[in-house]
Amino acid sequence: MPTSQPEPPQSAWKQRAYQIIFESDTRAGRNFDVALLVAIVLSVMAVMLESVAPINREYGAYLRAVEWFFTGLFLLEYALRLLVVRRPLAYAFSLLGIIDFLAIVPTLASLLISGSRYLLVIRTLRLLRVFRIFKLGRFVGEGEFIVTALKASRFKILVFLAAVLTLVTVIGTLMYVVEGGQHGFSSIPKSIYWAIVTVTTVGYGDISPVTVLGQTLASVLMILGYAIIAVPTGIVSAQMTSHRPAPAAPVYKQVVCHVCQAPDHKPEAEYCWQCGEKL
Amino acid sequence: MPTSQPEPPQSAWKQRAYQIIFESDTRAGRNFDVALLVAIVLSVMAVMLESVAPINREYGAYLRAVEWFFTGLFLLEYALRLLVVRRPLAYAFSLLGIIDFLAIVPTLASLLISGSRYLLVIRTLRLLRVFRIFKLGRFVGEGEFIVTALKASRFKILVFLAAVLTLVTVIGTLMYVVEGGQHGFSSIPKSIYWAIVTVTTVGYGDISPVTVLGQTLASVLMILGYAIIAVPTGIVSAQMTSHRPAPAAPVYKQVVCHVCQAPDHKPEAEYCWQCGEKL
Amino acid sequence: MPTSQPEPPQSAWKQRAYQIIFESDTRAGRNFDVALLVAIVLSVMAVMLESVAPINREYGAYLRAVEWFFTGLFLLEYALRLLVVRRPLAYAFSLLGIIDFLAIVPTLASLLISGSRYLLVIRTLRLLRVFRIFKLGRFVGEGEFIVTALKASRFKILVFLAAVLTLVTVIGTLMYVVEGGQHGFSSIPKSIYWAIVTVTTVGYGDISPVTVLGQTLASVLMILGYAIIAVPTGIVSAQMTSHRPAPAAPVYKQVVCHVCQAPDHKPEAEYCWQCGEKL
Amino acid sequence: MPTSQPEPPQSAWKQRAYQIIFESDTRAGRNFDVALLVAIVLSVMAVMLESVAPINREYGAYLRAVEWFFTGLFLLEYALRLLVVRRPLAYAFSLLGIIDFLAIVPTLASLLISGSRYLLVIRTLRLLRVFRIFKLGRFVGEGEFIVTALKASRFKILVFLAAVLTLVTVIGTLMYVVEGGQHGFSSIPKSIYWAIVTVTTVGYGDISPVTVLGQTLASVLMILGYAIIAVPTGIVSAQMTSHRPAPAAPVYKQVVCHVCQAPDHKPEAEYCWQCGEKL
Repeated sequence: MPTSQPEPPQSAWKQRAYQIIFESDTRAGRNFDVALLVAIVLSVMAVMLESVAPINREYGAYLRAVEWFFTGLFLLEYALRLLVVRRPLAYAFSLLGIIDFLAIVPTLASLLISGSRYLLVIRTLRLLRVFRIFKLGRFVGEGEFIVTALKASRFKILVFLAAVLTLVTVIGTLMYVVEGGQHGFSSIPKSIYWAIVTVTTVGYGDISPVTVLGQTLASVLMILGYAIIAVPTGIVSAQMTSHRPAPAAPVYKQVVCHVCQAPDHKPEAEYCWQCGEKL
Repeated sequence: MPTSQPEPPQSAWKQRAYQIIFESDTRAGRNFDVALLVAIVLSVMAVMLESVAPINREYGAYLRAVEWFFTGLFLLEYALRLLVVRRPLAYAFSLLGIIDFLAIVPTLASLLISGSRYLLVIRTLRLLRVFRIFKLGRFVGEGEFIVTALKASRFKILVFLAAVLTLVTVIGTLMYVVEGGQHGFSSIPKSIYWAIVTVTTVGYGDISPVTVLGQTLASVLMILGYAIIAVPTGIVSAQMTSHRPAPAAPVYKQVVCHVCQAPDHKPEAEYCWQCGEKL
Repeated sequence: MPTSQPEPPQSAWKQRAYQIIFESDTRAGRNFDVALLVAIVLSVMAVMLESVAPINREYGAYLRAVEWFFTGLFLLEYALRLLVVRRPLAYAFSLLGIIDFLAIVPTLASLLISGSRYLLVIRTLRLLRVFRIFKLGRFVGEGEFIVTALKASRFKILVFLAAVLTLVTVIGTLMYVVEGGQHGFSSIPKSIYWAIVTVTTVGYGDISPVTVLGQTLASVLMILGYAIIAVPTGIVSAQMTSHRPAPAAPVYKQVVCHVCQAPDHKPEAEYCWQCGEKL
Repeated sequence: MPTSQPEPPQSAWKQRAYQIIFESDTRAGRNFDVALLVAIVLSVMAVMLESVAPINREYGAYLRAVEWFFTGLFLLEYALRLLVVRRPLAYAFSLLGIIDFLAIVPTLASLLISGSRYLLVIRTLRLLRVFRIFKLGRFVGEGEFIVTALKASRFKILVFLAAVLTLVTVIGTLMYVVEGGQHGFSSIPKSIYWAIVTVTTVGYGDISPVTVLGQTLASVLMILGYAIIAVPTGIVSAQMTSHRPAPAAPVYKQVVCHVCQAPDHKPEAEYCWQCGEKL
């Protein structure tokens, strides 16, 4: 719900800018989104290439220029978003607003802390916003189906994870005792790391048991890991099987809030139920 | 639908050749298919054996002869198919027509680009055609069941893949920062490669974390990978469970087009709805 | 059911202590549980850190002191539990009572057998008790759902495990014969270990086949392992899918026994059906 | 059904021996089965231990004596089975009869071909017979449930395997071309072996891509392997979910044939429907 005092009418250019930056119903808005998507991908690729030593030697200066150019653009875009949105604070502290902010910080921070620049790959998370915009219902719905199934299973999955963590702690420690602190099992935390590598069937082989007792224990852990993968799979399968034929879902407006991206508005709603922005 | 002007009646030998090459209802047609299957398997085995150094030294000349022999045969067969089919262009640009064509090209191309010869293993895709011919309903039906379930889940699977790719990008970059570009994490793309190797539980061990923070982050990624395998599995399970008792499916003719292999023709259809070939 | 002779009325301080130590309905009881949880986590972390060589050199003495301190606390707590509980033997031989006991033993035993100290990580199992206390129905219920599904599937899973064990025995031996006792396949038990590493898709790579025949056999085993993971998953999925809409389950009291943690008491029950403790 | 001419009445001792060796309803029969189980396990363990070099040096002679002793016993048992069974040929060529025979051969063959002795681990398959005897309905039923589900899914699984094999053939060859026959990708068959190791998520790491293009291709293969594991799992889950509430199964006698172990006899049946032996 909006605050009670009537908000000042937005100036015309603000409304226009809002349409372009936050919405994607107009041609200009769609073009803006596509340009944003390209900019995100290019800037992430620049920092990736920069991390490759031979490329860095050759083109490092150019890539850093590209990086600063895009960071400048994103900074400008962020300022614009704050300017044209009706309730800047609501946007700034929404999930998407925080991601937009975090996508700029690393490059700036790299002036102080070298290496932090690489963290700008967090920009890839911004792609999720563009994803939502391109949506046309389909992808958002499917994504929400998955999220709903995982949410409904969260207690079961937590219990399962707690059981797995207890298992790797106990077996990891046993292995430390059994292998006598040798063959890579140099401490309990490292042995627990090995147990996780094993129970998840990743199996790097950087640490592997050598003694007969250790290999026997490892075999038990592997077969356990092989069998209990059935548990989360069963949980999610059962959840998805049961939740498919949604029993007469409530009808919502086919819009998401342009500021906080909240979905599921009542048909008669005029304001976002989450941040109060006009829909 | 066919073009409006009446097509010229096929000459008798063309009809006969069509029956043998494209259909498998007659004894001759079936024999042709079996011969084709054997030829494909032999030619693929020849190129495989040729790649084994000691065998190549000994029998290289023979194997290359075998290869050229079969390529000649397939070229002849391809020409015949073009000749006897009613609408050569429709065949040439159908999926199977393109595979038939690509199965010949690599050997010819090897005159210009050495090494391209090995690409003729694409011939194995031709086995799928033979698979369809041997069908007797069963295998095609089961294959279509799987394809249908995957198709119905494609949006969910794409969302899942997008989430996994974002995850490996972010964690791969973090690992690059955490391990300081050492222990094999020599660049961001390489670290992302490592993250994919880990999240899919493949775990080669060619790159593995050494620092405590790196191993902790890797453990999180492994447990995530172990848990989220449940998502695609759950999606496909739910899909397959629900789609089994198909609710009054439309009835189709039990034939596939001999040229483009399109299924699902109306009972009263006389021409393929996709390429216009007579059924 | 309790023994027939009437039990002596508990003294007031015992009842109070019982409430604090065994129950978690009062403020004091809840605080006790939180303190216990923190103590468990700290003591387990102490022994883990102690196993890390550089930390041990620096802070070994402190960590061992911490360890003895917590062991003393747990010993005291165990004595108190025995004192205030109505039926000490029932508690001592219940699953949780045994775990409480085992959580103390390793540190004491380390005076005799060096290295046994590390086994006190079994204390992590005590966390499960705290888990139950924090419950509020939710987690216990979900945990029981998983346990029930696994229990219902236990015969199928045993048959599956028997089949897998037979498979790895036979293929492991074949590999020993095929690889001629070389390339790490130095004995049949070791080859079986390799087969387990392979069929569970862990794949350390500490042992891997080198001969052509061995690699072929390994390929078969891998594809088998890849395919048969579907069996336990299918079993558990089917079980969980079917058991969700529980058909009119018998109604039980929403309590678990404070001593032996047995669930599922009749609504009219006044004593635990397993250990006779008053509910 | 038995042959039409009336069979000669069995002599009394034969009937008694039959009861002991083939059946397990009498006390003597049960003891015989337990003794057999112990003998199988001991003889398999003997050959396993013998393969361990240090144990072999020390106790080799004893272990070989144990092996010959048990082989003698099993030979005797096999002869007895042939003698007392009503239709020796039906037994000899039944699945269990063949396994009984193969369990003796390797030790005898080791006189001619050294190393063949190890193949007697095929004796572990005999344990399946004992498994059936211990049954009490439960395990056999569960085993049959699994086998039925797999059988019902066999066409789908074959289609899936054909697709996987085509995939590894094509990608394996591509990797051979991409990695230029180096980094372990020394031939197409070896590259296909690598592709199988990767797509099944085993990931030994004995061969792993080094070039950028190779690692990219490997990433695609891994994500494919990670995703398509959902297919067989979904197939089996769907099958098991659907087949659980068996719709009014036909009622069968609670016996299996003592000779060929065929189950599912009509209540009124007096002879085995598979081998004609008296039930």
